[in-house]
Amino acid sequence: MRLPSPSSPNPSAILLMHCPDNKGIIATVSEFIAKNNGNITFLDQHVDASKSVFFMRIEWELNGFAIPEEKIGEYFDVLIGRRYSMQWQLHFSQEMPRMAIFVSKLPHCLFDLLSRWKSREIEVEIPVIISNHKDMEPVARQFGVAFEHFAITGANKQEQEKAQLELLARHEVDFIVLARYMQVLTEEFVSHYPNRIINIHHSFLPAFPGAKPYHSAYERGVKVIGATSHYVTAELDGGPIIAQDTIRVTHEDSIEDLVRKGRDLEKVILARAVWHHIQRQVLVYQNRTLVFS
Amino acid sequence: MRLPSPSSPNPSAILLMHCPDNKGIIATVSEFIAKNNGNITFLDQHVDASKSVFFMRIEWELNGFAIPEEKIGEYFDVLIGRRYSMQWQLHFSQEMPRMAIFVSKLPHCLFDLLSRWKSREIEVEIPVIISNHKDMEPVARQFGVAFEHFAITGANKQEQEKAQLELLARHEVDFIVLARYMQVLTEEFVSHYPNRIINIHHSFLPAFPGAKPYHSAYERGVKVIGATSHYVTAELDGGPIIAQDTIRVTHEDSIEDLVRKGRDLEKVILARAVWHHIQRQVLVYQNRTLVFS
Amino acid sequence: MRLPSPSSPNPSAILLMHCPDNKGIIATVSEFIAKNNGNITFLDQHVDASKSVFFMRIEWELNGFAIPEEKIGEYFDVLIGRRYSMQWQLHFSQEMPRMAIFVSKLPHCLFDLLSRWKSREIEVEIPVIISNHKDMEPVARQFGVAFEHFAITGANKQEQEKAQLELLARHEVDFIVLARYMQVLTEEFVSHYPNRIINIHHSFLPAFPGAKPYHSAYERGVKVIGATSHYVTAELDGGPIIAQDTIRVTHEDSIEDLVRKGRDLEKVILARAVWHHIQRQVLVYQNRTLVFS
Amino acid sequence: MRLPSPSSPNPSAILLMHCPDNKGIIATVSEFIAKNNGNITFLDQHVDASKSVFFMRIEWELNGFAIPEEKIGEYFDVLIGRRYSMQWQLHFSQEMPRMAIFVSKLPHCLFDLLSRWKSREIEVEIPVIISNHKDMEPVARQFGVAFEHFAITGANKQEQEKAQLELLARHEVDFIVLARYMQVLTEEFVSHYPNRIINIHHSFLPAFPGAKPYHSAYERGVKVIGATSHYVTAELDGGPIIAQDTIRVTHEDSIEDLVRKGRDLEKVILARAVWHHIQRQVLVYQNRTLVFS
Repeated sequence: MRLPSPSSPNPSAILLMHCPDNKGIIATVSEFIAKNNGNITFLDQHVDASKSVFFMRIEWELNGFAIPEEKIGEYFDVLIGRRYSMQWQLHFSQEMPRMAIFVSKLPHCLFDLLSRWKSREIEVEIPVIISNHKDMEPVARQFGVAFEHFAITGANKQEQEKAQLELLARHEVDFIVLARYMQVLTEEFVSHYPNRIINIHHSFLPAFPGAKPYHSAYERGVKVIGATSHYVTAELDGGPIIAQDTIRVTHEDSIEDLVRKGRDLEKVILARAVWHHIQRQVLVYQNRTLVFS
Repeated sequence: MRLPSPSSPNPSAILLMHCPDNKGIIATVSEFIAKNNGNITFLDQHVDASKSVFFMRIEWELNGFAIPEEKIGEYFDVLIGRRYSMQWQLHFSQEMPRMAIFVSKLPHCLFDLLSRWKSREIEVEIPVIISNHKDMEPVARQFGVAFEHFAITGANKQEQEKAQLELLARHEVDFIVLARYMQVLTEEFVSHYPNRIINIHHSFLPAFPGAKPYHSAYERGVKVIGATSHYVTAELDGGPIIAQDTIRVTHEDSIEDLVRKGRDLEKVILARAVWHHIQRQVLVYQNRTLVFS
Repeated sequence: MRLPSPSSPNPSAILLMHCPDNKGIIATVSEFIAKNNGNITFLDQHVDASKSVFFMRIEWELNGFAIPEEKIGEYFDVLIGRRYSMQWQLHFSQEMPRMAIFVSKLPHCLFDLLSRWKSREIEVEIPVIISNHKDMEPVARQFGVAFEHFAITGANKQEQEKAQLELLARHEVDFIVLARYMQVLTEEFVSHYPNRIINIHHSFLPAFPGAKPYHSAYERGVKVIGATSHYVTAELDGGPIIAQDTIRVTHEDSIEDLVRKGRDLEKVILARAVWHHIQRQVLVYQNRTLVFS
Repeated sequence: MRLPSPSSPNPSAILLMHCPDNKGIIATVSEFIAKNNGNITFLDQHVDASKSVFFMRIEWELNGFAIPEEKIGEYFDVLIGRRYSMQWQLHFSQEMPRMAIFVSKLPHCLFDLLSRWKSREIEVEIPVIISNHKDMEPVARQFGVAFEHFAITGANKQEQEKAQLELLARHEVDFIVLARYMQVLTEEFVSHYPNRIINIHHSFLPAFPGAKPYHSAYERGVKVIGATSHYVTAELDGGPIIAQDTIRVTHEDSIEDLVRKGRDLEKVILARAVWHHIQRQVLVYQNRTLVFS
């Protein structure tokens, strides 16, 4: 059962779509909404001229819309989607997404996500926090969220991931946030949540993928460090980037300073990616994201 | 006579509009273009919910468009504009705008604009550079642009401005860039180029308007300094902001360091504002800009 | 009684000083430390050439230092300080500062400070959280910190501040952080904690002081918003700035978006100022800070 | 013959040094200067604790300094340098460095450097501009700088580099700036100007080294792009980084937009690196820079 999101007094529908570029798509889609008495509150489109692909995010108020919610998808597909060979997703603002958090030992992203949740900055349900260590259990308890510990070894990884997947299914989890989770997920695991696992990596990817990026950044002598939030794919730190930013550092910064300064960036960038995701602003196409915000 | 802008192989039309918010505007406008065989290459809209005003920038390719260029405005107004009580402007990408530069003694913004013009980063005609000092005449000459000197005193200001206006009219100037021009223009002068005079102010407005903002920034001990490019209005440094950015400074920066670091910001922000302006991305409403980019 | 700060395995002494500029100060001070067998781990100096004032922060390891801790101040003053007419402060890294938090209804800065404290990102004692509202009491309780409510009215303000001062004294509070505390402190209150009350203001000061800066920023149409952390003085939002930063916004951002984006800046900038303060990196001179970091 | 740099009314000496960390170095060096009547105007030091190496930049006024300029190096080495096993460099502010520019076809960095030179933002002599194409000859001529064309082919590269080296020697060039020079220099060539060839690479290294970084950035879907200025070493785009910065981009930015936005970053970052270099603020140690500014 989904709780309605309380901060959406005007429920709205959101369509994310892409298709081969063509004349008249915007007119057709916006007319479909307008003729059925929907008031468009957001429309942003993008044409990738080099690939001739059209992308759009459109949002409209449902109050007074002539087509009932449960029929909108069908009508849209029959009347428009098929005609333009569209790939589309339909979302409703009043659906409250269910988010699981995976964490290891570092608290800053976990504290930040839970604080935002508690303050209603991000409107989600958090049914469970999963960890390969017990260190963060007190934090989960402090915020009143269930905590499940799965010790991971080379030998038991597959089995443990299977148990995690069952747990996630039982909790009807929509998407997963890896809040500095220090385990590589298997391709099998990832395939259950395509473009629905959000990771934070502590470098400006594609520089310094994998382990210990702050150490590598220090050794290379960079003058900026960064953080990157991306959807997890089979390729390590290679998935579509949702949000990314950098800050300047100097020769005076030790590795410990980079870690300290990076923490603030990591938690802000991860939260930004989660925000875009739950606002249904993100469309993935060929390992790149379009973020309509 | 206007030169065609050579970098636009596909000529396009651009409509900037705003009107009371209403259902169906996007559908109506985009259908108007699509039905007449125009391919929309850009559409971005914005609704100011608090004021119930709808804003849009739409651009489409003219090749094959059914309505002749010189009739588009009329057709649009009759069929759509009046119906929605729209304020709108129509531009064509192949029109090369004619830009005058006003400068005093500081060379960095002038060098930067002329370099971008020479490199075709900005596609404009520069018929004349106007200055209240002679210092920059060699720079103008070096780039092969006419230079006109108007010494300004308290006594001759009105008269000199009148002569400047005649010169600008003779050169068919479309818009003016104040590249660190150290004279306040009179309200009378400004009224001839509404939202067509672009200034760069060396602070993050509204902080430190008027003279010597770097000195004030130093005295106040700020940790960031900024630059602001805005359209000139009757209120000093009070016009609609087009582009603005800041950089961090420390206690180690003397006023001279602020001036030096600020220069780079000033020239980049001014050039960014000029770019938005000539791309017809800027819409002014109630002393604020919408920059559709 | 002060707890030793556990993260300083090598205890060190920190001197912050300023005096009229003169030849030989660095040599004299560094020789004083070296001759007494102290290893300097940090030295940064600054000369304000326009005012002929010399500033320095110097830190050295105490292990093996010939002068006992409790005598360092006396020796330094007699041998050096008086000779150069210095103003100086001496701190020891192993002292754990005692920080009180004042908060009203907004949770983001409070959550952030408490999370950093719990994670030992900032090494302080937090004996008490003080508020003019009861909304944040559950957050204080969640983190196990005492919460004291002082309802403030026009009539009882002086009396309540007196009670707050007694409470702070009883808790041996060293400095106060206003984590979005929506009350102006009286000059009398401020005078008890000179350069020891840290506020976060949600604008890039000196722009938009006082109430509702995001509303003012929206109305003015700025393209960046900011946050400023400063020591509180008698002048509202006029004290010495410790940390300040900005982020870019666009016409698409409503006031609510500014508030949302600003929150991340506020909490990061406030935490940065607190970090500088407890690392004894901040020296105040004529309403400006030097931050040696 | 070297021209005196006219903007240094108070000539000063600058020492850059590093050595094994030890007690008393700062005291010894600053006492050496103070006792000989030198007024220190800048001192910044850094200890790399992990490697136990001490670094320092110290600058003092020469007026009234007891040791004649031509003897300072000898005295310093005998009295201090050898004792601490120092590596050190001595510079004098009134020496005007001689800078050669290498360029290919892109004008923005060239225009920017020449404009700064003409405006005296950077105080250097520019005896010659060298290019593997003729496109930039008019720009060189416009600024009155000699232009030398060296067509480079696989077959003639060694021979042409030899001729370039002779030309540079004849012009007594101190350092070289590669202002978007699209040729890889041979190891042999680079060995003649160790830490004296400054390159600008159009990405945030170590991401996207080599050719076409904006295309790679687009394909990877990054949300920031960057520019990196570094000293050239035998390893392509692998030398010590002097300055680096990034700007945010979105899915709306085509490759052409990345190129356009990146240009502003490139020219500012390259100029910043040149500034640090000619101010003698840069010390290279193990392929990393310390920039004392």
